[in-house]
Amino acid sequence: MDNTEALVKLLLEAVNSRPSAGISTDDIGEGDGIPVGVSNRHIHISQEDLDTLYGKGYQLTKTKDLGQPGQYACKEYVIVAGPRSAIEKVRILGPVRKETQVELLASDCRKLGIPMVVRQSGDLAGAPGVTIVGPKGSVYRDECAVVALRHIHMTPADAERYGVKDGQVVKIKFGGQRGGIYDKVICRVSSSAALECHLDVEEANAMGVDGSSKFTIIK
Amino acid sequence: MDNTEALVKLLLEAVNSRPSAGISTDDIGEGDGIPVGVSNRHIHISQEDLDTLYGKGYQLTKTKDLGQPGQYACKEYVIVAGPRSAIEKVRILGPVRKETQVELLASDCRKLGIPMVVRQSGDLAGAPGVTIVGPKGSVYRDECAVVALRHIHMTPADAERYGVKDGQVVKIKFGGQRGGIYDKVICRVSSSAALECHLDVEEANAMGVDGSSKFTIIK
Repeated sequence: MDNTEALVKLLLEAVNSRPSAGISTDDIGEGDGIPVGVSNRHIHISQEDLDTLYGKGYQLTKTKDLGQPGQYACKEYVIVAGPRSAIEKVRILGPVRKETQVELLASDCRKLGIPMVVRQSGDLAGAPGVTIVGPKGSVYRDECAVVALRHIHMTPADAERYGVKDGQVVKIKFGGQRGGIYDKVICRVSSSAALECHLDVEEANAMGVDGSSKFTIIK
Repeated sequence: MDNTEALVKLLLEAVNSRPSAGISTDDIGEGDGIPVGVSNRHIHISQEDLDTLYGKGYQLTKTKDLGQPGQYACKEYVIVAGPRSAIEKVRILGPVRKETQVELLASDCRKLGIPMVVRQSGDLAGAPGVTIVGPKGSVYRDECAVVALRHIHMTPADAERYGVKDGQVVKIKFGGQRGGIYDKVICRVSSSAALECHLDVEEANAMGVDGSSKFTIIK
């Protein structure tokens, strides 16, 4: 009888520990209160490359603050070219960074004729190179073009509240007519972060998501 | 003791009947053996509209058979225009249909300046209208532009094998670095169908899916 009770206890624990994929995603309700930021293709650029593309000592012009503190959209654009074709009007995001990094949509990679490599920001080893064209010059930058790994920016306090750690991979669940679950969403914890989940335009569209969408984290 | 055994039985059934959203999607393995067809924007056109756009009595030119029997890609394109902008090279799929239907990506709707309305093929009431332009003329067709509801074409025998019915809504689960679960996938059962899951380009890209990807159905 003790064994049976232990078995029942184990079974109950098993039932309770298994989140159900079968439940409706219609009712996310208020979600987990994490804002969604939807990114289109863009480029982070080094001062060295900015000098080549826009002229020696060029300073970026801020047009709009972004969700992450200190990050902003600029009025400046570049053309990104691959072996197959080019994409115009790829917006520069400021401030300048140590390394140039081009963040593309999966469909852009196909259009440019380069492999689609999904990476966390800054993890550029082995990524494809592209030519970047500005009004004053151009540069072929090796290992710079990636598709961003979906991620959630958060502070240590946010991480504690959601019970996750820096680098932890979670799932996120959206409701609505195109709802579903994205697996492999990395939590990026930093004291200089603002709470925000970043998806690219294709990921947002595929789930019918916009800046007002709610989601829940599944660990 | 009888009660306990009954409880254990019920608990076991509960555990077995609950698919887990928490398990890894890395290992889809062979999946359910259903091919994936990825659709870009396209148009199904009526003979009346084809007459207007390409000239009276115009016959479409097949370039490639598609996954569904009798359906084919044509060499002919149209321009689709909305209040904000136009999209060139929207391919016509044959044969001609009773009603003209434009199937767009969500990003196309934003570009054109029309609402994004997700619908099953043929369900056009209340959908936005667009102007369709061909080499010999143009037509404004009301209630014609939709984003396709993701779906699985199958025969009655396939439906029996997968334990689903016509019109049933299921989830589909993909593995890989961009894996996850799409909710709200409708099963469309017809004796003239070929087994195939249709996603649009954005849905495929967001999950890192191509024509060789495997998935499993979750009911």
